Amino acid sequence: MTITTVGLDADDTLWHNETIFRLTHARFVDLLADHGDEAMLQGRLAEVESRNLRLYGYGVKGFTLSMIETAMELTNGDLPPHVVREILAAGREMLAHPVETLPGVDEALAELSEKYRLVLVTKGDLLDQERKLAASGLGDLFAAVEIVSEKTRATYDRVFARHGTGPEEAVMVGNSMKSDVLPALEAGAFAVHIPYVVTWAHELADAPENHPRYGALEAIDRLPGWIAAAERG
Amino acid sequence: MTITTVGLDADDTLWHNETIFRLTHARFVDLLADHGDEAMLQGRLAEVESRNLRLYGYGVKGFTLSMIETAMELTNGDLPPHVVREILAAGREMLAHPVETLPGVDEALAELSEKYRLVLVTKGDLLDQERKLAASGLGDLFAAVEIVSEKTRATYDRVFARHGTGPEEAVMVGNSMKSDVLPALEAGAFAVHIPYVVTWAHELADAPENHPRYGALEAIDRLPGWIAAAERG
Repeated sequence: MTITTVGLDADDTLWHNETIFRLTHARFVDLLADHGDEAMLQGRLAEVESRNLRLYGYGVKGFTLSMIETAMELTNGDLPPHVVREILAAGREMLAHPVETLPGVDEALAELSEKYRLVLVTKGDLLDQERKLAASGLGDLFAAVEIVSEKTRATYDRVFARHGTGPEEAVMVGNSMKSDVLPALEAGAFAVHIPYVVTWAHELADAPENHPRYGALEAIDRLPGWIAAAERG
Repeated sequence: MTITTVGLDADDTLWHNETIFRLTHARFVDLLADHGDEAMLQGRLAEVESRNLRLYGYGVKGFTLSMIETAMELTNGDLPPHVVREILAAGREMLAHPVETLPGVDEALAELSEKYRLVLVTKGDLLDQERKLAASGLGDLFAAVEIVSEKTRATYDRVFARHGTGPEEAVMVGNSMKSDVLPALEAGAFAVHIPYVVTWAHELADAPENHPRYGALEAIDRLPGWIAAAERG
């Protein structure tokens, strides 16, 4: 079996992201503590986010707009201006947040890039993802970067056809079972799940059972070995 | 001279966009009429937009956030909740706005697509631009779509190398002198300016003088003829 191309998710696969969202969630809960307990506030925010996903797509800007909208609903039209100011500031801080690569990422990618074509495949705001890739220092290791609005089977068909030798000879690697693993397997690629410490509810899904092209790893340092083994057999 | 590839800007080149922004500007001015006259309100909004461009990039979501931020500054922290609600609604309406192609676009693109590879090159929110392309009915005419965070010489180098035979054999077409014409000429491509009825201040620039690869057209129906003439020499 030949593998030519390795697709890698970015947020929570190469660098911390969800923890930054969680910190902002906590800040949101503090700001609106007079209007409900944590579970209720988080629930309402999740509802609004989910409702807006179709229009806003993924990323910090849409999330910021959803926080403002939720705050407005929760305060029944009596929205304190400092809440809006704080939410805008929280959004801006997320967009300027330093990028911290996860343990082992630099070494694993350096090793993989010698043998395979690396392609970054990520959702989110275009400019923000480009900024994070530049700040990560990993940019030169990638042969291509695809920032996409949705990760479906068709996405992987297209990306691995364009930047590699088709999904059959590609591996997709990421922390989301729903976005990185399942649709890549459907497209005929290999797929490796490397869970992050927390997962956004929207990205949860069951693992595939006994799929010959599926693997699960605890950390990215095992990835070069896993791919080499897949190639052997 | 051979031309293989035609790059086309989207907003205000293929369909109306700036007029929708202007309508939202007018709505913003109405909402905040108690806090200043039109020129002052527009000026403040433009200032905030420009300040945020580095973080938010282009598109409706960043524009909506900038409207909220401007409203907050103008009201000195005494922001009426209905203003926030109206701004959020205006942003959502922009994201759901029907796409209306400009006169002659369908015919010109159908004709050009028979002879050249068409590539859409546009800034803005990823999901929103994909939605508009789908809604325009023009999607099938394009060999490739590149939604980019910035249009520079390097952008056109990369796009025309990836999807064509390099900038030397490509024409870029758009309504923005600053984003569509000048950097494409720098990259060595042909460039055609087709002005829209209004231009966002941020996209204004002087036309090139006596550049052998530059053209200006009043409407897109002249484009196939212009390109054929450029090929003849």
